[in-house]
Amino acid sequence: MNTESTSNLIFTNHVAEAIDEAVSRLNPSGVFVLVDRNTEDTVLPRMQMLSKAIGSATVISISPGDDNKTVNALTHVWQQLSDSRATRTSLLVNLGGGMVTDLGAFAASTFKRGIPFINVPTTLLAAVDASVGGKTGINFNGLKNEVGVFNDAHQVIISTIFFNTLSMTELRSGYGEMLKHGLIDSQEAFNALLSYHVEQLDTERLLTLLRQSVAVKQAIVDKDPLESGLRRTLNLGHTAAHAFESLAIERKSPIPHGYAVACGLVVAAVLSHLKLGFPSGELHKLADYVRHNFGVFAITCDEYPHLLDIMSHDKKNLTPDTFNFTLLRAPGDVVTDNPVTAADITAALDIYRDLLGLA
Amino acid sequence: MNTESTSNLIFTNHVAEAIDEAVSRLNPSGVFVLVDRNTEDTVLPRMQMLSKAIGSATVISISPGDDNKTVNALTHVWQQLSDSRATRTSLLVNLGGGMVTDLGAFAASTFKRGIPFINVPTTLLAAVDASVGGKTGINFNGLKNEVGVFNDAHQVIISTIFFNTLSMTELRSGYGEMLKHGLIDSQEAFNALLSYHVEQLDTERLLTLLRQSVAVKQAIVDKDPLESGLRRTLNLGHTAAHAFESLAIERKSPIPHGYAVACGLVVAAVLSHLKLGFPSGELHKLADYVRHNFGVFAITCDEYPHLLDIMSHDKKNLTPDTFNFTLLRAPGDVVTDNPVTAADITAALDIYRDLLGLA
Repeated sequence: MNTESTSNLIFTNHVAEAIDEAVSRLNPSGVFVLVDRNTEDTVLPRMQMLSKAIGSATVISISPGDDNKTVNALTHVWQQLSDSRATRTSLLVNLGGGMVTDLGAFAASTFKRGIPFINVPTTLLAAVDASVGGKTGINFNGLKNEVGVFNDAHQVIISTIFFNTLSMTELRSGYGEMLKHGLIDSQEAFNALLSYHVEQLDTERLLTLLRQSVAVKQAIVDKDPLESGLRRTLNLGHTAAHAFESLAIERKSPIPHGYAVACGLVVAAVLSHLKLGFPSGELHKLADYVRHNFGVFAITCDEYPHLLDIMSHDKKNLTPDTFNFTLLRAPGDVVTDNPVTAADITAALDIYRDLLGLA
Repeated sequence: MNTESTSNLIFTNHVAEAIDEAVSRLNPSGVFVLVDRNTEDTVLPRMQMLSKAIGSATVISISPGDDNKTVNALTHVWQQLSDSRATRTSLLVNLGGGMVTDLGAFAASTFKRGIPFINVPTTLLAAVDASVGGKTGINFNGLKNEVGVFNDAHQVIISTIFFNTLSMTELRSGYGEMLKHGLIDSQEAFNALLSYHVEQLDTERLLTLLRQSVAVKQAIVDKDPLESGLRRTLNLGHTAAHAFESLAIERKSPIPHGYAVACGLVVAAVLSHLKLGFPSGELHKLADYVRHNFGVFAITCDEYPHLLDIMSHDKKNLTPDTFNFTLLRAPGDVVTDNPVTAADITAALDIYRDLLGLA
């Protein structure tokens, strides 16, 4: 496969060669590879055999799952790097899902005030969402990505060879973010995504959709690396999604990020309909697709105040009392920085429950 | 006093007005002020009276001292910001010594992936050393500033009005860094510093020396913000100084940073004499000044292996086994990236002990 020359992004199915080439060019004083216990079992042994750099790297392993994306895990990575005498010219390769790439990128960005890192996403979600944009971080105080920095990977190597180890749930989770990019991009892209179902396992078609999807994000991020304006486009669906995820964690029953995004997109589409006249036909198409392909994140009206409280922490809010939503006039027609009231959100959550058969 | 228009640096004795002006221009959604328990008692009440912004700011307080520049204190600041619903447009004012400005700047740089911060150094050391250069961070794993990022303050407000609360020890500590800047700058600057003694308490003369000293650092940092080369000039004396400080912490008897720097400069001058022919007359002038004004950090030859081990962690080392020292041919003639062996350092430590009357 070809290399994207305009960015640090490589699409390839020859992952080991791509890693070894990147490492050879960078010539680090040492190589470390961060995995979670899942990728340590399923992906690392093969990569250690195929890649010279990974084969001789020092392995740092952390517990899997978004609820382990914590200060403790971050401190563990710093400790391993420090104990192993990593220098400022050492390299960290983050091999895993978004939790590993986010946390590993933050650890690398802050160890000795910054060492280079390469991200190798092993899930569809990480490939489509965490691979570009320079967002690094950990969860803190019950809030997702409350702490982190913006910093670009030296290289991001995207491949579909890891996806055969993923469950349908994980594939769907990534697809939730792709739906978001489709809604942001155009009616045509949105339609293409609605006509594909993850169960089809058409890896070639998925790869095409994935490259288009990453390109949507890349184009936005390039224009606004520090999320000062345009980039809030990518927040579509995420204010509600983050609140759903936080609530699910509190219920001790975490949900995959992309599922939360799919449900959050429905909330955003409802608000878009109420505030900006987003067509009700498109809203119903989206809600039906989400209902049939993702299922539903169930909430009760008793939980609204708590959900609103969580949303009030959102990083994109300009003041603690104003909810700042990215919304749509139509697929492909995005409006950022819509001020939304608690009453608007309450109404939207009612309609969300109705559309998804919860009311 | 005038404002430095070429940087974010303001020299003024009207600190409260300078803070209020900066805050008014930035127009943050909320203001937080970070202090340690010392500046909370000695400096904060006056600033709360004089500055409208500080008067209405939320106070975050941490324990003083370099041994509290830890992950725990960092986490405490994140927690207070998060619990108080700081947003990405909130402002953190770091009011204190280098520990407060380093840690506060790191907390601000990572909270919600970065909020603006203003540094108001209250010690001579922080004014001369931590006020420019964008270095933020905490100590970790027994190593100074092992974790952090490079990030500039929105504004740095430097004043001498706080220095009357400082002990002679604290003033001398700052003066150690000024000696370093003098050695880097020129024979003339070095001579001027040797002819002044902190006990003289000539605040006007000290202020002149301070402005010149900060200008030396600013000029270097502007040319190399990420410490990729030239900036290692500023590492003069610091490899040994950091090792002395780490050892002092392990002895449960920490020494002020500038004292460690003064002693570290002697080690660097000895190495400079051995490797680059630094004049022995200048070496003796420096050693005599340090011995009489700072006293001596006492070490025994039994401690050499441990000191070497600590030095091997230095961020500036390109590999774990090569010690990378900044040295001098003469005052004003700096050579970075001198490879130094363990045997060289052992010889230099012997001479250090001899020059300072320890052997």
